[in-house]
Amino acid sequence: MSLNSFGHLFRVTTWGESHGPALGATVDGCPPGVQINAALLQHWLDKRKPGQNRNTTQRKEADAVEILSGVFEGQSTGMPIQLMIRNTDHRSKDYGDIVEKFRPGHADITYWQKYGIRDYRGGGRASARETASRVAAGGVARAAIAVLAPAAKITGYMVQMGEKKIDRTRFDWATIGQNDFWCPDAQMAAEWEDYLDWLRKDDHNSVGAIIEVVARGVPAGLGAPIYGKLDTDLSAAMMSINAVKGVEIGEGMAVAALTGRDNADEIFMGLDGPEFSSNHSGGVLGGISTGQDVVVRFAVKPTSSILSPRRTITKAGEPVEIITKGRHDPCVGIRAVPVGEAMMACVLLDHMLLHRGQVGQNRGMIGP
Amino acid sequence: MSLNSFGHLFRVTTWGESHGPALGATVDGCPPGVQINAALLQHWLDKRKPGQNRNTTQRKEADAVEILSGVFEGQSTGMPIQLMIRNTDHRSKDYGDIVEKFRPGHADITYWQKYGIRDYRGGGRASARETASRVAAGGVARAAIAVLAPAAKITGYMVQMGEKKIDRTRFDWATIGQNDFWCPDAQMAAEWEDYLDWLRKDDHNSVGAIIEVVARGVPAGLGAPIYGKLDTDLSAAMMSINAVKGVEIGEGMAVAALTGRDNADEIFMGLDGPEFSSNHSGGVLGGISTGQDVVVRFAVKPTSSILSPRRTITKAGEPVEIITKGRHDPCVGIRAVPVGEAMMACVLLDHMLLHRGQVGQNRGMIGP
Amino acid sequence: MSLNSFGHLFRVTTWGESHGPALGATVDGCPPGVQINAALLQHWLDKRKPGQNRNTTQRKEADAVEILSGVFEGQSTGMPIQLMIRNTDHRSKDYGDIVEKFRPGHADITYWQKYGIRDYRGGGRASARETASRVAAGGVARAAIAVLAPAAKITGYMVQMGEKKIDRTRFDWATIGQNDFWCPDAQMAAEWEDYLDWLRKDDHNSVGAIIEVVARGVPAGLGAPIYGKLDTDLSAAMMSINAVKGVEIGEGMAVAALTGRDNADEIFMGLDGPEFSSNHSGGVLGGISTGQDVVVRFAVKPTSSILSPRRTITKAGEPVEIITKGRHDPCVGIRAVPVGEAMMACVLLDHMLLHRGQVGQNRGMIGP
Amino acid sequence: MSLNSFGHLFRVTTWGESHGPALGATVDGCPPGVQINAALLQHWLDKRKPGQNRNTTQRKEADAVEILSGVFEGQSTGMPIQLMIRNTDHRSKDYGDIVEKFRPGHADITYWQKYGIRDYRGGGRASARETASRVAAGGVARAAIAVLAPAAKITGYMVQMGEKKIDRTRFDWATIGQNDFWCPDAQMAAEWEDYLDWLRKDDHNSVGAIIEVVARGVPAGLGAPIYGKLDTDLSAAMMSINAVKGVEIGEGMAVAALTGRDNADEIFMGLDGPEFSSNHSGGVLGGISTGQDVVVRFAVKPTSSILSPRRTITKAGEPVEIITKGRHDPCVGIRAVPVGEAMMACVLLDHMLLHRGQVGQNRGMIGP
Repeated sequence: MSLNSFGHLFRVTTWGESHGPALGATVDGCPPGVQINAALLQHWLDKRKPGQNRNTTQRKEADAVEILSGVFEGQSTGMPIQLMIRNTDHRSKDYGDIVEKFRPGHADITYWQKYGIRDYRGGGRASARETASRVAAGGVARAAIAVLAPAAKITGYMVQMGEKKIDRTRFDWATIGQNDFWCPDAQMAAEWEDYLDWLRKDDHNSVGAIIEVVARGVPAGLGAPIYGKLDTDLSAAMMSINAVKGVEIGEGMAVAALTGRDNADEIFMGLDGPEFSSNHSGGVLGGISTGQDVVVRFAVKPTSSILSPRRTITKAGEPVEIITKGRHDPCVGIRAVPVGEAMMACVLLDHMLLHRGQVGQNRGMIGP
Repeated sequence: MSLNSFGHLFRVTTWGESHGPALGATVDGCPPGVQINAALLQHWLDKRKPGQNRNTTQRKEADAVEILSGVFEGQSTGMPIQLMIRNTDHRSKDYGDIVEKFRPGHADITYWQKYGIRDYRGGGRASARETASRVAAGGVARAAIAVLAPAAKITGYMVQMGEKKIDRTRFDWATIGQNDFWCPDAQMAAEWEDYLDWLRKDDHNSVGAIIEVVARGVPAGLGAPIYGKLDTDLSAAMMSINAVKGVEIGEGMAVAALTGRDNADEIFMGLDGPEFSSNHSGGVLGGISTGQDVVVRFAVKPTSSILSPRRTITKAGEPVEIITKGRHDPCVGIRAVPVGEAMMACVLLDHMLLHRGQVGQNRGMIGP
Repeated sequence: MSLNSFGHLFRVTTWGESHGPALGATVDGCPPGVQINAALLQHWLDKRKPGQNRNTTQRKEADAVEILSGVFEGQSTGMPIQLMIRNTDHRSKDYGDIVEKFRPGHADITYWQKYGIRDYRGGGRASARETASRVAAGGVARAAIAVLAPAAKITGYMVQMGEKKIDRTRFDWATIGQNDFWCPDAQMAAEWEDYLDWLRKDDHNSVGAIIEVVARGVPAGLGAPIYGKLDTDLSAAMMSINAVKGVEIGEGMAVAALTGRDNADEIFMGLDGPEFSSNHSGGVLGGISTGQDVVVRFAVKPTSSILSPRRTITKAGEPVEIITKGRHDPCVGIRAVPVGEAMMACVLLDHMLLHRGQVGQNRGMIGP
Repeated sequence: MSLNSFGHLFRVTTWGESHGPALGATVDGCPPGVQINAALLQHWLDKRKPGQNRNTTQRKEADAVEILSGVFEGQSTGMPIQLMIRNTDHRSKDYGDIVEKFRPGHADITYWQKYGIRDYRGGGRASARETASRVAAGGVARAAIAVLAPAAKITGYMVQMGEKKIDRTRFDWATIGQNDFWCPDAQMAAEWEDYLDWLRKDDHNSVGAIIEVVARGVPAGLGAPIYGKLDTDLSAAMMSINAVKGVEIGEGMAVAALTGRDNADEIFMGLDGPEFSSNHSGGVLGGISTGQDVVVRFAVKPTSSILSPRRTITKAGEPVEIITKGRHDPCVGIRAVPVGEAMMACVLLDHMLLHRGQVGQNRGMIGP
């Protein structure tokens, strides 16, 4: 019920603000005997780290993770794992203008109204910096999944920036890691680069994006009706990421335009069990995984902190204009890719443990 | 952590199958002193009830709700409220064909694989009949909201059926209750009627839909970072509804195509507090309500049970064709409208109680 | 977080009042494939049923349980199991006197102060009738335990009534079911019978008791540090039973008088693994089961509804005397025996599922 | 559902091991605007700190707490508060003997069996060092209680060591802070001192104790039936403390020996509302606070790590003797006093927030 936790059996609680001394995640319920060390987690954190190229915020953070508990001699002990990341580059002076003004499209105003106290040095708890904690926790989840479902593989990538969508016919898994955008379409990656340069330097603007995360090799049977559905938990997990305004499973919103005949993923018998003619379902039927790829998409809104003036008010209710200087991502969606992967990992592991807890292993056989 | 529960303080657990003796909801955490009676809940259930016109399943269910606990002399006592709805019209013979075959696009196969036991008389727990329980619980939530936030008003409607979208310039709140589709665009409602007649009678097919639910008069300050965000809980609530594959808050997936300048809802000082130039945010910033309309949309896939033959397999793994006779909704999205409203009501009430619990009342003043 | 639920993975929510139409339990998280039917649950309910002999309340209740969901063709489906028990013998007229007066030692006054509404027809939600729901849920738990840990055996019995304690040298398991008190000491059972006759008929009084519940054959490894300890959950489970004021594990409060040397249960190697020279720990070390008998004791206070006059006040604050007629248990501890057993069963099953979820099976070997 | 968390709305998750780099607590759900700083928390930690006199372990720990998040400019922000305490004096060499041997009466064997990995450098997660985290969290709870219920005052003290009980006629609140035992009976404190000297130096032994924690000034109305009772949560909170084997509310286990007439706390009308002739109930009726003192007692077993030889086995199953050198508390109950206070504070605050969430404020008036 904790407001800053998610997960049932594999339970992650994040803490920390963008300009406090540190942030991190308390990860509870990890199976014992999983090989975990800081370097392994750092691998994932480095993917999300700011300041790595000109397309993301120039804030310099080492994002070095320390494991403070729950790991002994390189293995998880089954006890809570505390992951801490020190904040090192927090130049508070950049934020002077937002002490009294509310950024349009930002959580400034709601935090102030609700809590009556706001960490004006940055986004505070609402900052995308919080997602570093998720990525660290996701690294733990990946390590445990590697033991429980070795074939599982989680990959995120960007499929849309502004109005520019990838061409699925050019989709290439190998391309994803070879550009600054986690883009599976090399040609579109080049277009995005030019577009973002213009947007940042000339237009003083930011832009939204759509991320897709796919989990391959997920066993059938994960998830539980009705409010513990795999896709219910995935959608909450993705919607909880900063700036996300929409979540889709499989066909997503486009399912509205399909008929039942078109949407039916017909079933065949394969060598290793049931196979499907298509994957409109996104790998989830009735909230339970089918064994197909689990496919989730989410839309990330454009950063509200931009150099273009916007009209707003002060705490005193005075009308003013605001320009947010600081160091902000022109397309925060880029760095959301490893975050989406981490959330997928956490949710999948959680459901592996839940499934094992209630059911043990799949009970219904199909075949002769 | 219960798999069949949702909510933090206002907590709803549903139970029951489509062809069992009864189904219902155990509603815990309702404030005491709220006026509740069966007639009041029945009002909402009647909106969702099947068999009311030719556009929905012809199954006849009274959907009469009984209050078994938690209400005394017409008022909630603060104790759990048990709401029971007897199943009356469950013609099991209709379902003979699906005992051995899996319907493509249906939970049949995943339930079987996971649990090794399946209520083949109908959808069992995966049936849309479960949503009657939600509507009953939502009636309780509405009654409590009427006390805590009398100005709040929750309205759902359909904005798309198949490829046919409403014309927002013809949007009329008054029209919503005047057609079989909860459609705010009278002209489109007429089109849908013809389309659905053809689809059902001639095409033996079904179709998807998009539902929008709007809560007006919601006070600012509801929701809590990071994993208890109002929109996180709303998205989980909507995604947990049968057949839903996508959820959007405010601008939703379309936010990806916007720039930061366009997406910023500029802020002004109104007579009663802050006002906004637009509502791209859907009434939620940083997971906390702004006081604007809370706007959620979700996409419902087409019913998988159709009269057109689809290829599938049997439990024994044999390839077969399947036609699902039974009595199914050609557009199950229609009856999802009151369900979406109910989920909105439950989530809002839950966050009203959470907010009161942690914060008491909003603490940050804006204005001179 | 539901206030009327307990358990992590095997989660029980009870509902209902003593004088409402029905009460029951929503049991979520039961493994699929467990053989369950009403007769099996009735067996346990009949042990708790009132009106079976002169030593308990003369209220006549069939306590017939109906299974409304979650069981299909005699097996659990993995879906929530709704268990309903109709109230049949609720003579409200008996309770006229307590509409305005608060019974000393009863929840009347706190319910009124907190909720401002009280089901004055009886104890309402605070009535011991609620425990029927627990016994029904416990029956489900026992059936699942029979699959997961066939050797496990749960037995409750009374060890003290008033100041009269059993003589442990006369302890005989076989005697427990052969008297009205679940007493393992036949001689003491006879004494209690005389004492209770006098107390009820001549003294118009009631008396407290101590119940002990032992679970034999519990595998080592159940329970989890720090706040999910097996004994933490057991103590909450027992303390949640009406009228319970103290809970002990193993040596219990008496451990205070022991030295470390005396309290150490020395360890030996037996044929099937570690064995212990004694069981001061009550089968739990560090919150995790040792494989020894799990031993819990709890004290039940005397019924506050007695025929002797006590001083109290009315809602209006007027001083008055009160005599509670109704039909009440002179020693409500007697009927708490099957309730304690049911709670033990629910907690053990829950921890079996939790253990399987996080750990799978015990990982540390002991032996050559 | 997190295994290392407790509380509903005010939710504490502790983490860390006795010989890891640090330990701490993630405190979620604290109301905003509460004045909190490290010095304020340190005050409570210093009460529990080891090595302060010859009666407790000689391990030297500064137990200096750092606040890493959730507090800004001296006030809680409503965000999670991360409290970290570095371990400084962890001399692992002391623990060489327990790498292969299991200490009788200690969690060594169960942790090993369950998890197959154990932090042999000390008690690991099972060490009483974990309770420092609770005391830090309790400091936060006390600060919030000071705002919400300024009259509330929580005091713990020891009432029994070994077989030596305090004389209640000599009870003096002022004495509690004036001896090393938090003992309200100065004469008994002197006796305990001699006894403990002998036990430690001559007998190489340890001893159990009983702690009582009283909360005065608690408003009526806190707690909720049936599984969210105030006393249910208190008993779980106390039982979760290391080495606790029994918990009592009010009369506790002794209630068994009382009759209904004796146990009834008769009710009178006082100037400020209802008053009671006695407090057998320990301030809780039906799980809800009465406004009287809330009284909890718990028994702490003697430390299992003693200098006297005990028989045990090794991981290989070989029979051996064990003597635990290290630096251990001869009566760990002494340092449990501030821990019990902290748990009382956390539970009370949690129920204040829960009460405000569901009910707002007490609704039932008593009086003319």
